[in-house]
Amino acid sequence: MVELREGERVDDLQIKGYQIIQNPKGFCFGMDAVLLSHYVAPKDGSRIMDLCTGTGIVPILMAARFDVEHIDALEIQGTCVDMARRSVEMNGLSEKISVMEGDVRKVRETFLHGSYDYVTVNPPYMTGSHGLTNDDMGKAIARHEICLTLSEVIQAAKWLLKPMGHIVMVHRPFRLAEIINNLKENGLEPKRMRLVYPKIDKEPNMVLIDAVKGGRERITVDPPLIVYQSDGSYSEEIYEIYYGEIPK
Amino acid sequence: MVELREGERVDDLQIKGYQIIQNPKGFCFGMDAVLLSHYVAPKDGSRIMDLCTGTGIVPILMAARFDVEHIDALEIQGTCVDMARRSVEMNGLSEKISVMEGDVRKVRETFLHGSYDYVTVNPPYMTGSHGLTNDDMGKAIARHEICLTLSEVIQAAKWLLKPMGHIVMVHRPFRLAEIINNLKENGLEPKRMRLVYPKIDKEPNMVLIDAVKGGRERITVDPPLIVYQSDGSYSEEIYEIYYGEIPK
Repeated sequence: MVELREGERVDDLQIKGYQIIQNPKGFCFGMDAVLLSHYVAPKDGSRIMDLCTGTGIVPILMAARFDVEHIDALEIQGTCVDMARRSVEMNGLSEKISVMEGDVRKVRETFLHGSYDYVTVNPPYMTGSHGLTNDDMGKAIARHEICLTLSEVIQAAKWLLKPMGHIVMVHRPFRLAEIINNLKENGLEPKRMRLVYPKIDKEPNMVLIDAVKGGRERITVDPPLIVYQSDGSYSEEIYEIYYGEIPK
Repeated sequence: MVELREGERVDDLQIKGYQIIQNPKGFCFGMDAVLLSHYVAPKDGSRIMDLCTGTGIVPILMAARFDVEHIDALEIQGTCVDMARRSVEMNGLSEKISVMEGDVRKVRETFLHGSYDYVTVNPPYMTGSHGLTNDDMGKAIARHEICLTLSEVIQAAKWLLKPMGHIVMVHRPFRLAEIINNLKENGLEPKRMRLVYPKIDKEPNMVLIDAVKGGRERITVDPPLIVYQSDGSYSEEIYEIYYGEIPK
């Protein structure tokens, strides 16, 4: 039996009975993490690294969906690492997922060059000048580029990936040009991308992007992912992603 | 009265009574040109250069919609220049639009540096290896990068634009990463972009992009432009763009 600390709760993930420990006062996972774990398409037996793993939501959802060899998950904040480790244990995934405390900027000191098939990352979205920094430093580190910039994330992925390995990222569309440019400058070729529109007549608020180390120059832009129907209910595709089926 | 040459026809443009001369055996304008002319938002009194103007469709539509100071239009193919000039005359736009025969790769020799507020361009989409080269060399030059590459288009725009001037381009999404990277490398910052999806569940087949010379790094991705409704009829927005109103 896994122990809960003060203020923590256990949330059901609607897949394989898996659960996750979160603290509602801290950073809780959102739709971005769910969509990221769904956008990755790893081959069986892949080795995956999830950067900025937080409470471990992305590796746990990937372990539920795919027959991967092993997922390493890296997180800088000790309280998140502690929660993520207990969630992994609670779900019986200790053989499959290793949660490590560490700094994405220092992967060269800790991890072998070219050792992963996939790097997934839901990084801090906001630069210093965009939006206010949160009073709660834990949330602020998850949301703002305080400990880690986009460029540092991409350089870490470049180090970690095998040739033809994939970095799969979720981010905000207002940084799309910067993301694409930075990926290409680091030899990670954007091959697939999808924009997530809250409604059919709204600007997108998320972008999913899949880049390949040493890939050929050509990108497929996927059909739009529309979150809400005009009546305010989830679209069929969002239902499928969250619950694996369309409601009757 | 403007003379028509053998095989030519006159098409109505559904705006201000303007018409265009085209040869159905040659390259005829498509929805991409209409959407491009609609995506530009020039301030009154702007000086505009339309590169790869073909039969002059983009400058004529812009002259119909905006109170611009002057539009220069550059085209390498003499037969197109000839058609474009007669279309301009036919619409009484000779004071507003100048059609010039010339090579986009040589703008430095002919045009002043930093002299335009806007550059619009509907360039050849296909690289040598994508799709087959058309038997008809005129169409092939319009569609394939035979006489002009993406990089050369962007370098020409960089030369022609004033500081904070805009390049507005329509292209194919499979080249989006290359376009963004090339723009940024030339100091043209992508500020606005829109994906055009044939239907709500299809991959986009066009992208509209507006970049600013010396702009700040931040892009707005617009709501999706959906062309067809599920019953196969045009969406309301496409009706508005083509006819200025929604059908009753």
